[in-house]
Amino acid sequence: MRTLTAWVPVGFPDVQPGDDIGSMVLDMFRFNDVAPEDHDVLVIAQKVISKAEGSVINLGEITPTPAAKELAAQAHKDPRLVQVILNESSAVMRVRPGLIIAEHRLGFICANAGVDHSNVGLGENWVTILPKDPDASAEAIRSRMEETFRVHVGVIINDTHGRPFREGAVGVAIGVAGLEPLFSYVGQQDLFGYVLRTSIEGVADELAATASLLQGQGAEGTPMVLIRGGRFKPGIGSLVELLREPKKDMFR
Amino acid sequence: MRTLTAWVPVGFPDVQPGDDIGSMVLDMFRFNDVAPEDHDVLVIAQKVISKAEGSVINLGEITPTPAAKELAAQAHKDPRLVQVILNESSAVMRVRPGLIIAEHRLGFICANAGVDHSNVGLGENWVTILPKDPDASAEAIRSRMEETFRVHVGVIINDTHGRPFREGAVGVAIGVAGLEPLFSYVGQQDLFGYVLRTSIEGVADELAATASLLQGQGAEGTPMVLIRGGRFKPGIGSLVELLREPKKDMFR
Repeated sequence: MRTLTAWVPVGFPDVQPGDDIGSMVLDMFRFNDVAPEDHDVLVIAQKVISKAEGSVINLGEITPTPAAKELAAQAHKDPRLVQVILNESSAVMRVRPGLIIAEHRLGFICANAGVDHSNVGLGENWVTILPKDPDASAEAIRSRMEETFRVHVGVIINDTHGRPFREGAVGVAIGVAGLEPLFSYVGQQDLFGYVLRTSIEGVADELAATASLLQGQGAEGTPMVLIRGGRFKPGIGSLVELLREPKKDMFR
Repeated sequence: MRTLTAWVPVGFPDVQPGDDIGSMVLDMFRFNDVAPEDHDVLVIAQKVISKAEGSVINLGEITPTPAAKELAAQAHKDPRLVQVILNESSAVMRVRPGLIIAEHRLGFICANAGVDHSNVGLGENWVTILPKDPDASAEAIRSRMEETFRVHVGVIINDTHGRPFREGAVGVAIGVAGLEPLFSYVGQQDLFGYVLRTSIEGVADELAATASLLQGQGAEGTPMVLIRGGRFKPGIGSLVELLREPKKDMFR
């Protein structure tokens, strides 16, 4: 019998721009008398990383360009919000009333390029954008945990993204440190000796989805999840490994 | 502090066509001295359901049509395998050498319409196809668990699917019983009173992904996972709720 356990400390403090998120994570371990172990994975929600790093924008200070105004009319959205979305995007993939699906400058494809009104807490006009370099944000937390607890852990920054074909957003990794985000079964034998030829599993996204089941999106203050027992290989890790090369993608 | 726990009994027996998978699940609980509780979710891999239900095909008995031969030439695949893929599909979405992405007759989109060589164990020429009605397969196990243990649980049949834009396959639900596969935050307030307008989470897929972290795809005999502590609402549930209406999908 093997077990995977994920625990979420409740009552993670409200995060303000400039806060030291690494210290907050370490404090949550101490307050809950839990110590991370080797091969644990810490998953932390993008929203608190963005806030701590000051990746927040006051729409009141944004002047939309004509391109943003035109896209805003198509999408039935605030032109200032659309300007922020364009600033965060390398390409607009699809538009319809109520929805802009963009390729974020980091390479993944999601609604509104990750620009979000919820759980900001700075006032009506404020939105969060995604962290500037989520791999670096993850690595900063990972190295703090290694220093403090002398453990080798993985760290994932997660967000919830919609996806083609299926309803419901799911947790995905947008930043990775300390683990290989893909786990390859290629060359291994199955239960009956058949050699697996194509099985590569997106374990970082599966870990991100597991965390999402505990984080919620409402008024709970539960952005941090520690997962023990997941199947992955330690490594340097990067979001980049999770992104399919555009020219190899058949659904763009 | 809240916790999610997933455990997988190791040594699930080899499944043969005609086996009673419900009994095998109940036995695994008994052998491991674990009792399911209300609000647990049992996730079980498609592969063992297909085998028990006889959803296995001997390619030696398949005669490909000209259409299958043509597609096989495009995809560099065995024409008999391609015939089975076509029989399982309502539409072929994309083709390139080595890959056929199809809309399965059940409505989801995946590689090879779920037809698979691995972990079959009946001989070189055999493949599994997906269960005829995975919601019904899930419901049969759910009702057996309710009868035996007097508990209200959710049951998910899972498989690993690739997806657009991102590398790595992830666990997804292809059959659901006893839980609502989508969890809506719409109308709830966030941490700061902002009313969430668009947040619907695909919790059945997140549970399927969590299970996938423990199941693996190699020679392990670990198709069954019990998850405790996941966020979902009990309900009748169906795969259908997870499928986006084709006309609303912007990436077909």
